[in-house]
Amino acid sequence: MAKNAIVLLSGGLDSTTTLAIAKEQGYKPHCITFDYGQKHVAELKAAQEVKQLIDKEAEHKIIKIDLKIFGKSALTADNIEVPKRDLKDKTQKSVPITYVPARNTIFLSYALAYAEVLPANDIFIGANVIDYSGYPDCRPAYIEAYNIMANLALNNTSGEKIKIHAPLLQLNKSQIIEEGLRLGVDYSMTISCYDPSQDRFSCGRCDACYLRLNAFKKLGKKDPIKYQK
Amino acid sequence: MAKNAIVLLSGGLDSTTTLAIAKEQGYKPHCITFDYGQKHVAELKAAQEVKQLIDKEAEHKIIKIDLKIFGKSALTADNIEVPKRDLKDKTQKSVPITYVPARNTIFLSYALAYAEVLPANDIFIGANVIDYSGYPDCRPAYIEAYNIMANLALNNTSGEKIKIHAPLLQLNKSQIIEEGLRLGVDYSMTISCYDPSQDRFSCGRCDACYLRLNAFKKLGKKDPIKYQK
Repeated sequence: MAKNAIVLLSGGLDSTTTLAIAKEQGYKPHCITFDYGQKHVAELKAAQEVKQLIDKEAEHKIIKIDLKIFGKSALTADNIEVPKRDLKDKTQKSVPITYVPARNTIFLSYALAYAEVLPANDIFIGANVIDYSGYPDCRPAYIEAYNIMANLALNNTSGEKIKIHAPLLQLNKSQIIEEGLRLGVDYSMTISCYDPSQDRFSCGRCDACYLRLNAFKKLGKKDPIKYQK
Repeated sequence: MAKNAIVLLSGGLDSTTTLAIAKEQGYKPHCITFDYGQKHVAELKAAQEVKQLIDKEAEHKIIKIDLKIFGKSALTADNIEVPKRDLKDKTQKSVPITYVPARNTIFLSYALAYAEVLPANDIFIGANVIDYSGYPDCRPAYIEAYNIMANLALNNTSGEKIKIHAPLLQLNKSQIIEEGLRLGVDYSMTISCYDPSQDRFSCGRCDACYLRLNAFKKLGKKDPIKYQK
């Protein structure tokens, strides 16, 4: 019987590829998506569509949590604009304003609770360090430390260790797309933009669009999603 | 100027004492209470009253999160009864059904987000290992591992380390009460019961009541809260 795994699924390019990898490795995925007050709620719709496409049978929980209560990120705070950039601009600030404080720590903690209840010993997260935009909670040392803590946090009676899988950790965005295409992922359902229009056209100018567009370009492929002019 | 600290406050005996300790150590407390689908919502009212009593000025965020979505604890699942016991019964099962999967991990993760935003480098939690009812996420090794992870999770530019303070970790319930009384804590506002009545009478028969009643008795003191007959 396939082993249960929790997959953090945002509907973006990385988490979608991660879900396909978990499937390929023979796990039975249980997906979690967070409705956390993000401006780009188009993510939630994308996550549901992507899940259907990759695994109709998989369980999928959408968890409503309020990260707006703390503010201080352009992804959640109404008074902070999502920054836009020139696609030719290669400079990257240290930690951008789109960073949401402790987001991955909170997401993984819910995954842990879900893992204990199922039970599951495997948790998949699409974090990656190469194009991670300087987010501290995407670094390998962070993932390792989280994994050690996780094994002390739970009432794990199975004798098996909890493992946090971050299969994209050392891949750049083009490599992630190549891996996804190899696994048959249809990226037209995904969305990466931090600030898409109501009808799900990506802005093409935020950090997330910048990385995505450049990665497809590097592969000589056309990004199949819709962009604003 | 007083340093900011985050204090996880449930309105119970332990977290109330912890708040008093943070104050005594000279911190400016910022309290978080979780409305997590617990049956004993009397906690929320108690937390607010306790906060007012100990520090009128302190910020206090009540965060609504849904741990019911995972079920599997007598504290949140409608189909699991809170177990009652004979007060003379000294046996303690390994991990009781009142354990909420990954609860402290989730709570601390929100505290981390709040710490980064404020900013604060100090987080107080009332976990204790002696009378901790066998909860894995109250063990010293867990708190230490969480602390290491926390220092890798945040965009901490202050140069100071995050510290998770668990001042009650090695105290038993009587020692906690003694410490609180020394600091002038009025325990009549607190509530520990997992299954209180609507008008906030404690049941006197769940694990939490059992520990609390026995601790006051050991000190030769009367617990100032109301119990059902």
